[in-house]
Amino acid sequence: MRCFFRVEYDGRQYAGWQVQRNALSIQSALQEAFATVVRRPCPVTGAGRTDAGVHARAQGAHVDLPPDADLNRLVIAVNAVLPYDIAIYSLRQVDESFHARFSAIRRTYRYRLAERKSPLLHGRVWVNAHAIDWELVARESTALMGTHDFTAFCASGSGAASMTCSVDEARWETACGVRTFTISADRFIYKMVRSAVGTLIDIGRGRLSDSMAAVIASRDRGRAGDTAPPWGLTLDCVSYQGV
Amino acid sequence: MRCFFRVEYDGRQYAGWQVQRNALSIQSALQEAFATVVRRPCPVTGAGRTDAGVHARAQGAHVDLPPDADLNRLVIAVNAVLPYDIAIYSLRQVDESFHARFSAIRRTYRYRLAERKSPLLHGRVWVNAHAIDWELVARESTALMGTHDFTAFCASGSGAASMTCSVDEARWETACGVRTFTISADRFIYKMVRSAVGTLIDIGRGRLSDSMAAVIASRDRGRAGDTAPPWGLTLDCVSYQGV
Repeated sequence: MRCFFRVEYDGRQYAGWQVQRNALSIQSALQEAFATVVRRPCPVTGAGRTDAGVHARAQGAHVDLPPDADLNRLVIAVNAVLPYDIAIYSLRQVDESFHARFSAIRRTYRYRLAERKSPLLHGRVWVNAHAIDWELVARESTALMGTHDFTAFCASGSGAASMTCSVDEARWETACGVRTFTISADRFIYKMVRSAVGTLIDIGRGRLSDSMAAVIASRDRGRAGDTAPPWGLTLDCVSYQGV
Repeated sequence: MRCFFRVEYDGRQYAGWQVQRNALSIQSALQEAFATVVRRPCPVTGAGRTDAGVHARAQGAHVDLPPDADLNRLVIAVNAVLPYDIAIYSLRQVDESFHARFSAIRRTYRYRLAERKSPLLHGRVWVNAHAIDWELVARESTALMGTHDFTAFCASGSGAASMTCSVDEARWETACGVRTFTISADRFIYKMVRSAVGTLIDIGRGRLSDSMAAVIASRDRGRAGDTAPPWGLTLDCVSYQGV
């Protein structure tokens, strides 16, 4: 039977979501934990293939389990097998047609930036001590809103058929000296959030004179700024119709 | 010259604030880092002596430095010497009469509790899967407000002259499945926050039939509940007049 679940992880120790040869991944840790508990192979599919060092609070995923599985006991057993930095929750049966990636309707990412060394967010924030014009950054961020071709923020090797995404949230908040950028869209292309944040910071530092709107319109990766480091990024939530 | 500074730390790897024989402490790490940079002994005094495993976001402290010290450069140098889980900030000269502990006028602690394994708050939250009546916990928490003799929540060996504290904030919030208790007072006695949280949770679980008001009025540690574990506790902020 097909089951949906959510997964929270601290990505510091992993080479990203996707199974890789000779590297620890979130997907392989989950597959091994499910297989250890149910004693047969359990392929796991996630909504978003996060990069090495990127974290998740409520990533969506699905797994096919034996029809007799006791889901409440399984959550406890799988979490006990998983290391401290990965946990699953909200495990429940869904229709066979459900697909964690293709059924997702909206994704939210958060990117955190601090001006000083931050022990309580170590490995989860980009420490950037440069002088940044935050009013300019907030203003330029609004250019991301709406439906655009985001080729300018797509790293090579994505293999995506479409570069069009509809962004419905792009805002900065500050709390306790940490600045958090929240961006939501129906879909994201490869390294889009980190490229957009890196470009915004380059504009805020005065290293890039183009506006965000001009960079997006150019559809040229060469016009965008640096890619922000992975450790500041968290896949906050993946939303589904009725899930 | 006497200098005030703030310090943020993840307490997981430390035997608490205070210098101890044969154990790593926050105070000794700070004293060694200052001494390495200024090349002479630098005694550091903190506002609150947090226990082993307890964290801090804006602990207050003071240190006596040579009068020619360049404070901006010193912050960078000291943070570079300190390990990743301790950072200082807001270093500045204060009057010789200033004392990080005795000049403090208000302290705020936060205690975090989650119902499930939480990778993004690993080592910083009490994972407690028991059924808890949260409405009862919120209601009973209000009994902490005001000026009381808190002997019932004081661990032995405190050596404090007075058990009276004035609590002006005691509230629970929930965000993303994590419950946070915030408590502020002019002062706290030894293990008071963890004893109060442990008692509230024991009441919420139905393990303790006394009300918080009755436990406080008893001035008897034997009437209170268990002490909540240290890893859920963070010294959020220490406030000073005009600092």
